[in-house]
Amino acid sequence: MHEYFPGVKKIEFEGKDSKNPLAFSYYNAKQIVGDKTMEEHLRFAVAYWHTFKSTGSDPFGSGVFERPWNKARTPMAIAKDTLAANFEFITKLGVPYYCFHDRDLAPEGATFSESIKNLQVITELAKDYQENTGKKLLWGTANLFSHRRYVHGAATNPDPHVTACAALQVRHAIDATKELGGENYVFWGGREGYETLLNTEMKREREQLAAFLHLCVDYARRIGFSGQFLIEPKPHEPTKHQYDFDSATVLGFLREFDLYDAFKINVEANHATLAGHSFEHDLAVCSSAGKLGSIDANMGDACLGWDTDQFPTDINTMTRAMLLVLEGGGLGRGGLNFDAKVRRPSLDTADLFYAHIGGMDTFARALLSARAIIEDGRLSEFRQQRYSGWDRDFGKSMLAGKESLESMEAKALERGEPEIPSGRQEMLENIIISYI
Amino acid sequence: MHEYFPGVKKIEFEGKDSKNPLAFSYYNAKQIVGDKTMEEHLRFAVAYWHTFKSTGSDPFGSGVFERPWNKARTPMAIAKDTLAANFEFITKLGVPYYCFHDRDLAPEGATFSESIKNLQVITELAKDYQENTGKKLLWGTANLFSHRRYVHGAATNPDPHVTACAALQVRHAIDATKELGGENYVFWGGREGYETLLNTEMKREREQLAAFLHLCVDYARRIGFSGQFLIEPKPHEPTKHQYDFDSATVLGFLREFDLYDAFKINVEANHATLAGHSFEHDLAVCSSAGKLGSIDANMGDACLGWDTDQFPTDINTMTRAMLLVLEGGGLGRGGLNFDAKVRRPSLDTADLFYAHIGGMDTFARALLSARAIIEDGRLSEFRQQRYSGWDRDFGKSMLAGKESLESMEAKALERGEPEIPSGRQEMLENIIISYI
Amino acid sequence: MHEYFPGVKKIEFEGKDSKNPLAFSYYNAKQIVGDKTMEEHLRFAVAYWHTFKSTGSDPFGSGVFERPWNKARTPMAIAKDTLAANFEFITKLGVPYYCFHDRDLAPEGATFSESIKNLQVITELAKDYQENTGKKLLWGTANLFSHRRYVHGAATNPDPHVTACAALQVRHAIDATKELGGENYVFWGGREGYETLLNTEMKREREQLAAFLHLCVDYARRIGFSGQFLIEPKPHEPTKHQYDFDSATVLGFLREFDLYDAFKINVEANHATLAGHSFEHDLAVCSSAGKLGSIDANMGDACLGWDTDQFPTDINTMTRAMLLVLEGGGLGRGGLNFDAKVRRPSLDTADLFYAHIGGMDTFARALLSARAIIEDGRLSEFRQQRYSGWDRDFGKSMLAGKESLESMEAKALERGEPEIPSGRQEMLENIIISYI
Amino acid sequence: MHEYFPGVKKIEFEGKDSKNPLAFSYYNAKQIVGDKTMEEHLRFAVAYWHTFKSTGSDPFGSGVFERPWNKARTPMAIAKDTLAANFEFITKLGVPYYCFHDRDLAPEGATFSESIKNLQVITELAKDYQENTGKKLLWGTANLFSHRRYVHGAATNPDPHVTACAALQVRHAIDATKELGGENYVFWGGREGYETLLNTEMKREREQLAAFLHLCVDYARRIGFSGQFLIEPKPHEPTKHQYDFDSATVLGFLREFDLYDAFKINVEANHATLAGHSFEHDLAVCSSAGKLGSIDANMGDACLGWDTDQFPTDINTMTRAMLLVLEGGGLGRGGLNFDAKVRRPSLDTADLFYAHIGGMDTFARALLSARAIIEDGRLSEFRQQRYSGWDRDFGKSMLAGKESLESMEAKALERGEPEIPSGRQEMLENIIISYI
Repeated sequence: MHEYFPGVKKIEFEGKDSKNPLAFSYYNAKQIVGDKTMEEHLRFAVAYWHTFKSTGSDPFGSGVFERPWNKARTPMAIAKDTLAANFEFITKLGVPYYCFHDRDLAPEGATFSESIKNLQVITELAKDYQENTGKKLLWGTANLFSHRRYVHGAATNPDPHVTACAALQVRHAIDATKELGGENYVFWGGREGYETLLNTEMKREREQLAAFLHLCVDYARRIGFSGQFLIEPKPHEPTKHQYDFDSATVLGFLREFDLYDAFKINVEANHATLAGHSFEHDLAVCSSAGKLGSIDANMGDACLGWDTDQFPTDINTMTRAMLLVLEGGGLGRGGLNFDAKVRRPSLDTADLFYAHIGGMDTFARALLSARAIIEDGRLSEFRQQRYSGWDRDFGKSMLAGKESLESMEAKALERGEPEIPSGRQEMLENIIISYI
Repeated sequence: MHEYFPGVKKIEFEGKDSKNPLAFSYYNAKQIVGDKTMEEHLRFAVAYWHTFKSTGSDPFGSGVFERPWNKARTPMAIAKDTLAANFEFITKLGVPYYCFHDRDLAPEGATFSESIKNLQVITELAKDYQENTGKKLLWGTANLFSHRRYVHGAATNPDPHVTACAALQVRHAIDATKELGGENYVFWGGREGYETLLNTEMKREREQLAAFLHLCVDYARRIGFSGQFLIEPKPHEPTKHQYDFDSATVLGFLREFDLYDAFKINVEANHATLAGHSFEHDLAVCSSAGKLGSIDANMGDACLGWDTDQFPTDINTMTRAMLLVLEGGGLGRGGLNFDAKVRRPSLDTADLFYAHIGGMDTFARALLSARAIIEDGRLSEFRQQRYSGWDRDFGKSMLAGKESLESMEAKALERGEPEIPSGRQEMLENIIISYI
Repeated sequence: MHEYFPGVKKIEFEGKDSKNPLAFSYYNAKQIVGDKTMEEHLRFAVAYWHTFKSTGSDPFGSGVFERPWNKARTPMAIAKDTLAANFEFITKLGVPYYCFHDRDLAPEGATFSESIKNLQVITELAKDYQENTGKKLLWGTANLFSHRRYVHGAATNPDPHVTACAALQVRHAIDATKELGGENYVFWGGREGYETLLNTEMKREREQLAAFLHLCVDYARRIGFSGQFLIEPKPHEPTKHQYDFDSATVLGFLREFDLYDAFKINVEANHATLAGHSFEHDLAVCSSAGKLGSIDANMGDACLGWDTDQFPTDINTMTRAMLLVLEGGGLGRGGLNFDAKVRRPSLDTADLFYAHIGGMDTFARALLSARAIIEDGRLSEFRQQRYSGWDRDFGKSMLAGKESLESMEAKALERGEPEIPSGRQEMLENIIISYI
Repeated sequence: MHEYFPGVKKIEFEGKDSKNPLAFSYYNAKQIVGDKTMEEHLRFAVAYWHTFKSTGSDPFGSGVFERPWNKARTPMAIAKDTLAANFEFITKLGVPYYCFHDRDLAPEGATFSESIKNLQVITELAKDYQENTGKKLLWGTANLFSHRRYVHGAATNPDPHVTACAALQVRHAIDATKELGGENYVFWGGREGYETLLNTEMKREREQLAAFLHLCVDYARRIGFSGQFLIEPKPHEPTKHQYDFDSATVLGFLREFDLYDAFKINVEANHATLAGHSFEHDLAVCSSAGKLGSIDANMGDACLGWDTDQFPTDINTMTRAMLLVLEGGGLGRGGLNFDAKVRRPSLDTADLFYAHIGGMDTFARALLSARAIIEDGRLSEFRQQRYSGWDRDFGKSMLAGKESLESMEAKALERGEPEIPSGRQEMLENIIISYI
């Protein structure tokens, strides 16, 4: 079998003093952290699109990556080589999962039938690879945004004919995900939004989207797909406004259209920051609703107003993220998918390894730090103490619906002006950084 | 009676060629536009806080406005002078409404009881002024963000003692609003959010907020307050994150906590833009949900990342806003409240008139343009045609829940690749600007 | 000859009540405004790249525009068809100028020599078209950012071999521009910047850029190219940081490296806004330095953090822009180049006409408004009066370097606290909008 | 003498495993790092305004900090108490420097003469404290932005009378700085900018500013002030646009007006990020020009569009900052001034200690990491190798002005298409994070 990364052996853990750029300094898959191994906590996945399908093109420049798996004569031959490269890569990297869009895995054909067939062929091959390598599928999805037919949206298209095409595509993407034992299926509505309200009926389009998701939920139940359904919010890009703006918006949408029980959220760090939030914020929104399904692990650039999808190396942010994950009971069936790409000038396949190693080490370290912070206990104790008034007396009874404005007013009049303690933000921040 | 604006007479409509800076060029209160007068369509209100209580201080500088109504010896005397100035101003400007926070109207006293008394005294005086001038209250609200006791929030405070103080204050603010015949009561949660998640339990705080709003709704019903309850979203400022981030977030919150039927939204232009939306977007979110309650009419500065609250002079944006308002059936019991302030270097009381005249003329013109665009009909016709596929055949049946992924797939296979028409954004934009 | 826009005749001026989407409502080329015709004031140009070479691809989607001039079998045949389409388009639109990058006009060949040859062949054809149609070249430039070889920059590349390739390309782009009588030659350094300082020596790279520009200036002088040299600032995109961040940065760079006299600035509206300025700001920076060379006329979207290059339809902003242009003595040898693209869903060639018509009408109207504001005189009179203290006494002598801190202090002590007048921002804004 | 922080003893270094919130984990003043102690490298200063003069007010709320040094009956008595608190604080914290505005130190009087006198009185007291404690003044400055008279600017005011007031103030601020042995004097032009171009003549105002700075330079020379003059850039806030937008803009301004040799730059992290740059970027701009004078050490919040002035706890950013500082030869006469404030809810004086300890530990750690990265050598070696082509052959001769476009073209034709190596961004980032 052809080797696509001949200069790279399996990446090993060498500890934090290693200067080997092709080794882990912190990620030690089998190391026990609390009740689980690092591997079980972090559930890393490689994103097929960025790692294998990206050419490095950007709005001002052509493709620059000259990948050995991209040289065959036909689209299907390229698809097969790419699949082989994927399994070689995740095996050498020591990552248990991968994620894909249908069109990453197999090319669009000349007809719908050919496209369906292409996906089925590669799915079968992927299944073999999975069996041979022990690697697994974290999630699959359908690309409903790249093809010209989706220029006005897929489920939210003004023409139901296009939505029918999307239905066809999602059906087979779910089939492929089920066939490969995928633990989740993701919906990211890249073109489910609008460019201008002048030609858009927002109310109709949101109803279309809801109806479409109901079809998908019904289908999955009927065929016995047991994976988790996830929606991935993003505020804009490619469309000026995407309906799934952020986690709070998505949760409201799910409630509105009776879809709340059928979905969780796939939170992407860079999408949260583009929506004007911190990554932690969107994690907390989901976590406090019991809806944190999975994470797209990356980071943006505070100077740039678009989705830069960089590998996560910000240890402060990722420690706070892992703190929320651990406090929320872990990632469940979700994982940490590196929806991240090497910068365009990082031309070599070796850069794909460096990039993933940096991201994995950062999260491994964040896990260790977060665990230590939890064991320290000062943070959670501070918070518990801070809100303790709501666990008793009129605080408790107000939450139980047993007070009125008048009864509350009476408490204020009786007690007078309250004492106000410090919020201690800086002291708490120091605790965090002391564990990094 | 003392005259606070002695150099200014009643502002009159002089038409668009007038060079009188103290006249309207477009706003002609009694002019009929469609089925109503301009005054009935636009329902302008003056914001007590910016217009009468602002000193022009900013984070880097002290107060600069030397207002004649701010010179008396005691807080209550100042409050009475200010009230007189308000009614003189709105009478001369020809605006039918005003809006206030409790603390704008009457000063905080040394005790809660004194604060309550202060508000009651001024409320009685305001009632007299209203009767004498025919002016009305668009909405009242309580200031739960300026006082030191609210540094950690009001309803979302970690200490229910503070929430009790907020309850006291809201009770009397609702009473004052009812007494004055206010058509709406607004909740803007300036400190209902967080600075850092390290000391915050988001889940608890949102539950506290919901419980608090239920107290308010119950109280209003019990006392027979018939005005509309409104929530005003804002993403951040003063807190890093406010729970009422934007309209979609608020609607989701209302659904989650069984408050949906009791509230509409007060959309502020500059708050929408700070949340990463266009003003039109947030109007459309509310309007398509039947939840557009009222509007805080202002605009921000695209170069500045905070709430600049400028008077609205952007005719393109305001025309699109009025188009959404008219298409949605008008402002109902809400209005256009100028939550806007003169720039700090605009030191004179005359500047208050110039600023409001500019805003009123802009909205009057936007109303005329929007009306003309609706009468033209090309925009709505384009949209209706564009979505017509969803009114028949499998489009219609999918929306009715009568299709499946498989039946939709069958349609795609049968019909093949769809034809994709242009979205015609630029042509539609040209229609808009042709009416400006 | 093949007609690429068979459904479109020459776009005529029909006045502001026209409902013909293929007619001008305001732009009347031969109408006299002050001392010149509209055409002479506005000097419109069409951008070859957006209008003819764009496929509508974006970071999440493939090309969607199916252009009739893009169907031939070879790159050179396509280049010839595209050239024909350009001249048909600008003739029907009634625009006097066009602008290009070398690689828009003619394709990259298999060798440098072939690329040079390709450009020369098309240049000769373009010259014929220009003679036959009377159309002219506003400016040419070289594309030093799309090809893989420029992934690390062109003049600022760490490898001078790449810079040599850029020199080759610029030489022939200047030759083509001279051959076609281009009135300007533009430098936009799309990749002249950095992605990370970790691998970048900023000092070296800026010196390389300066040395390269000196080569270009020297070459142009030697061959007798009499056009104006322009630098076009942009803060970032495609690189994280571009050295030509904004106009002030470029002017500082030109001073530092003894290039100040050889260049003016090409200000693009959307680039100014991405740099955190208003469009007017960057125009004023250039204008007050006598360095406003030309304008890339477009606008961005305040919700989106990238270069959206939309057609300019914001009448407020463009009126202020034209005010600065007229006050600065006009566009000189520069022009208004529509560096703007139709939105991706605007699929038809007709949309190219609608878009340009909207932009041209907006600027025509802005010209008329700006002219009327100047004739009104209140704005300039206000400003003149406001600063008049600096034209006399110690104000004048301080500017002449004849005062000291002590002598100024003495004036303050003598005069005491100054009277502070209002800045009258809102009143002045009302004057502007009264002319729109 | 009254003790203002009775619960706090001198903050000691206890090492990184300490859980004492009032101890340093990394900052060990006398520890040698390379050729200097930590204290000599970092040259920390406390900012008088944020730490002692802030009341915690914000645009939506009143003051909340109840400081014991702020309780005396007269402004001068408060000034004396505050001075005592300052020296107690910096002594307990173990910081060698402090920084002030004239109005932080001493209150504005009823007349200019009284204001001058007030400052002189407190300056004499401060001198005594300095002698007794061994503490020093890093820099002084004049507050030319808070008082009403500066509402339209100070040096850039349309009225030279106001500029005369500014001259008076700066003269005595320089005198005080000289008297106290201040090592630098800073100019931050908070209102040296504009709100609207409609009432502004940018060209005049920039000339006024330059003339004013010349007065200051001349005065300082005449009186023998040997400190360094610094300009501190900021893009906006309080004014919509400040002339000293960022470091590149300031350097261009200094060149334009023959002030280049007389000034260096004081770079503030949060100001750089508000200008759309990274902190490292603005440091590199200054450092590569030999103009890095001093640093205002803080950080902003990526979610918030204003100057949040938070204590710096982002170890990644600060390590990169210290790398630039060390590579540039250190801070010279400048220092690291904590222009940072505790969050408004951090009500206690203890929070002032926690906050500074977190900032100091972060920079101490950043210093250690940066030093280790330099000793590792891989980063600088990579960069040196990367640009080596410019040290020889035609690269070198082009930089020396000895090539032409034609001679460079000849090299390209001779050598053909270049090989393009990877930029290795991710690998280099991994080296950085391995030292954190």
